[in-house]
Amino acid sequence: MKLSNGLALNSHPSGRHFLQIPGPSTVPDRILRAMDYPTIDHRGPEFQQLGKSVLAGIRKIFRTESHVVIYPASGTGAWEAALVNTLSPGDTVLMCETGHFASLWKRMAERLGLVVEFIPGDWRHGADPAAIEAKLAADPQHRYKAVCVVHNETSTGVTSRIADVRKAIDRAKHPALFMVDTISGLASADYRHDEWGVDVTVSGSQKGLMLPPGLSFNAISAKALEASKNAKLPRAYWEWNEMIASNASGYFPSTPATNLLYGLHEAIAMLHEEGLDNVFARHKRHGEATRAAVRAWGLEVLCLEPAEYSPVLTAVVMPEGHSADAFRKIVLANFNMSLGQGLGKVAGKVFRIGHLGDFNDLTLMGTLAGVEMGLGLSGVPHRKGGVLAAMEHLAATAPAAPASEKAA
Amino acid sequence: MKLSNGLALNSHPSGRHFLQIPGPSTVPDRILRAMDYPTIDHRGPEFQQLGKSVLAGIRKIFRTESHVVIYPASGTGAWEAALVNTLSPGDTVLMCETGHFASLWKRMAERLGLVVEFIPGDWRHGADPAAIEAKLAADPQHRYKAVCVVHNETSTGVTSRIADVRKAIDRAKHPALFMVDTISGLASADYRHDEWGVDVTVSGSQKGLMLPPGLSFNAISAKALEASKNAKLPRAYWEWNEMIASNASGYFPSTPATNLLYGLHEAIAMLHEEGLDNVFARHKRHGEATRAAVRAWGLEVLCLEPAEYSPVLTAVVMPEGHSADAFRKIVLANFNMSLGQGLGKVAGKVFRIGHLGDFNDLTLMGTLAGVEMGLGLSGVPHRKGGVLAAMEHLAATAPAAPASEKAA
Amino acid sequence: MKLSNGLALNSHPSGRHFLQIPGPSTVPDRILRAMDYPTIDHRGPEFQQLGKSVLAGIRKIFRTESHVVIYPASGTGAWEAALVNTLSPGDTVLMCETGHFASLWKRMAERLGLVVEFIPGDWRHGADPAAIEAKLAADPQHRYKAVCVVHNETSTGVTSRIADVRKAIDRAKHPALFMVDTISGLASADYRHDEWGVDVTVSGSQKGLMLPPGLSFNAISAKALEASKNAKLPRAYWEWNEMIASNASGYFPSTPATNLLYGLHEAIAMLHEEGLDNVFARHKRHGEATRAAVRAWGLEVLCLEPAEYSPVLTAVVMPEGHSADAFRKIVLANFNMSLGQGLGKVAGKVFRIGHLGDFNDLTLMGTLAGVEMGLGLSGVPHRKGGVLAAMEHLAATAPAAPASEKAA
Amino acid sequence: MKLSNGLALNSHPSGRHFLQIPGPSTVPDRILRAMDYPTIDHRGPEFQQLGKSVLAGIRKIFRTESHVVIYPASGTGAWEAALVNTLSPGDTVLMCETGHFASLWKRMAERLGLVVEFIPGDWRHGADPAAIEAKLAADPQHRYKAVCVVHNETSTGVTSRIADVRKAIDRAKHPALFMVDTISGLASADYRHDEWGVDVTVSGSQKGLMLPPGLSFNAISAKALEASKNAKLPRAYWEWNEMIASNASGYFPSTPATNLLYGLHEAIAMLHEEGLDNVFARHKRHGEATRAAVRAWGLEVLCLEPAEYSPVLTAVVMPEGHSADAFRKIVLANFNMSLGQGLGKVAGKVFRIGHLGDFNDLTLMGTLAGVEMGLGLSGVPHRKGGVLAAMEHLAATAPAAPASEKAA
Repeated sequence: MKLSNGLALNSHPSGRHFLQIPGPSTVPDRILRAMDYPTIDHRGPEFQQLGKSVLAGIRKIFRTESHVVIYPASGTGAWEAALVNTLSPGDTVLMCETGHFASLWKRMAERLGLVVEFIPGDWRHGADPAAIEAKLAADPQHRYKAVCVVHNETSTGVTSRIADVRKAIDRAKHPALFMVDTISGLASADYRHDEWGVDVTVSGSQKGLMLPPGLSFNAISAKALEASKNAKLPRAYWEWNEMIASNASGYFPSTPATNLLYGLHEAIAMLHEEGLDNVFARHKRHGEATRAAVRAWGLEVLCLEPAEYSPVLTAVVMPEGHSADAFRKIVLANFNMSLGQGLGKVAGKVFRIGHLGDFNDLTLMGTLAGVEMGLGLSGVPHRKGGVLAAMEHLAATAPAAPASEKAA
Repeated sequence: MKLSNGLALNSHPSGRHFLQIPGPSTVPDRILRAMDYPTIDHRGPEFQQLGKSVLAGIRKIFRTESHVVIYPASGTGAWEAALVNTLSPGDTVLMCETGHFASLWKRMAERLGLVVEFIPGDWRHGADPAAIEAKLAADPQHRYKAVCVVHNETSTGVTSRIADVRKAIDRAKHPALFMVDTISGLASADYRHDEWGVDVTVSGSQKGLMLPPGLSFNAISAKALEASKNAKLPRAYWEWNEMIASNASGYFPSTPATNLLYGLHEAIAMLHEEGLDNVFARHKRHGEATRAAVRAWGLEVLCLEPAEYSPVLTAVVMPEGHSADAFRKIVLANFNMSLGQGLGKVAGKVFRIGHLGDFNDLTLMGTLAGVEMGLGLSGVPHRKGGVLAAMEHLAATAPAAPASEKAA
Repeated sequence: MKLSNGLALNSHPSGRHFLQIPGPSTVPDRILRAMDYPTIDHRGPEFQQLGKSVLAGIRKIFRTESHVVIYPASGTGAWEAALVNTLSPGDTVLMCETGHFASLWKRMAERLGLVVEFIPGDWRHGADPAAIEAKLAADPQHRYKAVCVVHNETSTGVTSRIADVRKAIDRAKHPALFMVDTISGLASADYRHDEWGVDVTVSGSQKGLMLPPGLSFNAISAKALEASKNAKLPRAYWEWNEMIASNASGYFPSTPATNLLYGLHEAIAMLHEEGLDNVFARHKRHGEATRAAVRAWGLEVLCLEPAEYSPVLTAVVMPEGHSADAFRKIVLANFNMSLGQGLGKVAGKVFRIGHLGDFNDLTLMGTLAGVEMGLGLSGVPHRKGGVLAAMEHLAATAPAAPASEKAA
Repeated sequence: MKLSNGLALNSHPSGRHFLQIPGPSTVPDRILRAMDYPTIDHRGPEFQQLGKSVLAGIRKIFRTESHVVIYPASGTGAWEAALVNTLSPGDTVLMCETGHFASLWKRMAERLGLVVEFIPGDWRHGADPAAIEAKLAADPQHRYKAVCVVHNETSTGVTSRIADVRKAIDRAKHPALFMVDTISGLASADYRHDEWGVDVTVSGSQKGLMLPPGLSFNAISAKALEASKNAKLPRAYWEWNEMIASNASGYFPSTPATNLLYGLHEAIAMLHEEGLDNVFARHKRHGEATRAAVRAWGLEVLCLEPAEYSPVLTAVVMPEGHSADAFRKIVLANFNMSLGQGLGKVAGKVFRIGHLGDFNDLTLMGTLAGVEMGLGLSGVPHRKGGVLAAMEHLAATAPAAPASEKAA
């Protein structure tokens, strides 16, 4: 396909592009091919089977037995859905400044007419359960209608400890709804909607679910559903109740993004074939290998708290005086790899390595080699040996032990 | 891919399915294949080329030189975007009951806190320019902030005369914004955003644009953009200004549905290769052939006004005492064809034949043969000869005259 | 993709092309997508699973428990393989002039150094068992080393009665090998390698197997395999023994056409899902409907013997003074449909309608409408009503009776 | 798609498989997608455009202005075509034992009834021009009808110096035909059919052309074509003259492998977009980096002559007492990478790293990391540092200098 400037969309440098941004992640061939089937009648019996299947399957990914609604929308849309279905104009919500996306969600809440109390953060730690508890404990009138936390901050590579935040809310005996954005965490990092007592979980298709962007999700507790009855923010497209009513028979109230649902069906199957716990362990191991490389280079991981290292991506701090964006440009031009840019407050100061989604050891090694070579080409002070350090970690933790192989 | 009930999504009766609902329309192979390319970095230089190309190209389809914004959303979302960007709580809008989708748009407006004055209709005619003019003329205080009309009513196969409505508004010298839904009309029926003086045009991907569902559009006049500055309905996801600012450099404020944009790029190229006027003529001719068949069967076309026949679809009235849905079920079971169901007030009473999108003479003939055979199998009283009548029309208007062929 | 002349391979008239030649048949989406997976190591364990699966599966399609070898080659290659593996220079074979492809096979045999006795035919009948019996009975020295018959003559739409030919050979008590070409018959017309006592069956991928061209087959009886030990025609690429030895472990002696094998795997699955007998009945019914149309037009079916009507294709005789090729050109230009041309002796005098492979009622109706309209546009004398006659046949034999539907 | 053993063909470990065998090489998405288009009428006008385009384009890849014929067959078939079109039973040919594939070609020649004089080799050097010259000089009766050399021995990673062999033949003033197999060399290693005076060049689709297997080629000099007139080996499927006659109008004498030709069309376009010389330089550089790694590991490259290093693949000698196949199995099980096995005389003793086709720096780095980790897991004695050495070579020769980047 030709672009109007004479370039062709399908004309690229030789070999596979390394798409190592923290999402959209690389879409596996199997999902691309599933999405390539002809669109069907969204009101017919075949669609009904598809609808029922993906609606049942996606719950298992969120680890919930409650409702999950699927929007043809980006993750931003699902943020809005979570807010407008549960809150009323002027309501106050408690949010935590974990990074760029937490800041964007805050800005959205304010645009929608909510009042946000924003617990400040340094973009190098997750949400602080103690600070949240203190805020809630100091709110006997229950002014806070919701506590909103980003599980995996895509801008920083820091995860927030959701189970601990839940405990903090419980300790404060506060009735606020608990809303969590795990847009980039779902299906790469361990996440448990029901067990962790989350009321609304927000997610998207283009990260751990390995789909192209275009779908987003709300997992909804009974408490959140109850809250939606009295919520006064105007809503129509995002309305849960109509969605849930229609979903009961496998259908959707407005035209669903059928071909993306084909892909979702396949993604759910793939995740269950590998096993969610195996998926989480795989990303955790790749995060460890990546950090081993960063340390060997003598560079700094943005995340300061080991318990909060993201298995999804690693944000690396550029040495003072060096532009992360110039570095990323050199990597792209020389090595056909896209790395994630610094966003918001850390623009130009960090670059981000995605190790989420459909990913494996050798792709990680290619990725880290590209970073190490790019650091050299860019004149960024660093020690060699990052690639070697990562390789040692991967070899030491290789899945199939050679002994058993020899025995087989 | 296996569904959880043991069925496979890719397991179908032999031969091509005839997807003759009035959208989603059949997605051409070329678009499906374009969408099957790996997802790229939505913040990288390659995406920028894609973004600029589709943003420029889509304007030509709307025949506007103003902005067109693209949402990852269904057409319902674009309805909401049109309203929340331009209106304030309690504003009154004038809408016209042309059918099911006009009724749904009205319901949405009310949910969002608008007051709707709904000019009643019989679902067999388009919006009445005279009635609109009368309403506006009787509104010297300019209570009506917007006039909203559905261009091509997908539920009835009736088009509204948008140019005439514009003239009516002008004659009434009324400043109301003019909003038009051409979700199912765009790129199958003639449509001119600028020439017809429309302020917001709403459309979607899965009809004349031949894409799967998942993208929707707002074309926006300078007047509408100006109105958005003072519009008070809360909005964030749908916010035009942020979208337009980001689009200026080829990017999007939240993650765009990259793979659907690949398809859009291809769709725009295909429409221009054929020529928009040729596309419109093709659908018009197929509508004529379809109505010739309906008349030959002795059945009734739902649309009563010849000037308002839709080139996109034809809704056929079932004889009293016969269920359109039982008929459609028999057609699907015997002939592997999906026809559109009656919606809302005409549920069970009409069926709809889509002849939009990527469509040609022989597919129409297969479609009409399936309808004629289905009428027989269902015991619906009718005369034979519909297929023959359509064939005569198509042969008489065949594109390549035999004489020129012989000469070639 | 752009051709060097500036045309794009993926740029076509709107709507689905009707590929109604008698092969290559329309490749179903499911097979195209299966072939679109990345190529794998043809010496690795995953390939081994694939190899074993397709080698086992293809036997069921030939209805044999003996070996079937798969060549990366066209059907012509498999003709050559059958001859060079079993015969020696100067051997005499008995062949039957059923049409163009039988004549090409004869020419090949002669080029390879064989002596062919060719029983003449009028291209409107299948091979004559009585004539074959007479020849064999008059050959007490067993000069004939093989009897070669084309099961489904793609150039004429006539099938030969293979079981009857077998009986004729048996009655003559002649030891000649029995070789059958069912390139266009396999998986559309009933065929039984073992039950009918065939020694070598030749077939190809692009007809009833619904694949693109590129694979061809030999099914091999124990007697044929034994004969190969003493056959003296030089051979290497086509050598059965090496193929069979390698196939035993799921592999191939030279690099196999992996992606076509992906498609074959899918084709076998699809045929078994529908059921071979259902597939045969489907094509038989479509042949009946097609002949009903031809008769209604007042035209002549080339095949003169009802017991030999092909379920794969119907060749139609053009009235004297009218060019079948001019007609086909008009159909292609006006209706985006490819019909089969007359070949060899009947070039320009017949056209052929393929109703094989992945095919259904409404595609047949579109096809026949295109023929009927094309006859009119070409000024070919005919009566209208062919489409109606076909429709009546299809409706009368529709698979899902409405009564049972209502009960369901 | 499910295999009969319950496995699914599309079910794989997470992430991209590293297919680092020396062919089939990784098929780029663009080619897979091109092959996924519906099959068209191989006797129609659209096919004619395709046929003309690929027939013209492939000549440029062989760097010839003479004929190139395209077979639906593996490379083995094209070997056979080269021999049977030019030689007669009992003819003597001079061949050179450069490795496994040269030995297989020799065996084929013998099977076809030719007499082969085989110049012995150690599988670590290319064909020796001096030895060939000596043989030819000692043949005043011109008993040798052809000299056959493998350009790029896929089993050893050694290239033969074809231009030098041509000079040797010329010095000997010998009229023998010069036949070259560049199945794995074409479009990865520099090759010039016309300039180097080759009479028949044999190649295949699944290596530098980046296609799946299934097509093979003969480039044919005028002298070879002349020789075919008197060649007496029986032939039909492989017959050049019929192919060339049909190709003149863009068609093929038997059904061509249409979908593979779609892919070929795309491959030719991609090679020209990158520029053949750039393609060759890319593979040469990757070969250098690979050998730097091998040396750093303290292992031995099989090829002993630097002037003969293959840019396509590198064969690595396993230390005595270690099984290359056990090593490869461990690499596959742990790192989802396929390496090439040792073939024939070097079975179990070498493994082969493919760096051909659609390939880039980071994929090479992933590949070498997998080898280095696999050596460790397998207990093969080696030094660490191979990956680092390769990385240093790649960084030192990176295509886009950072300075120019900064300037841009």
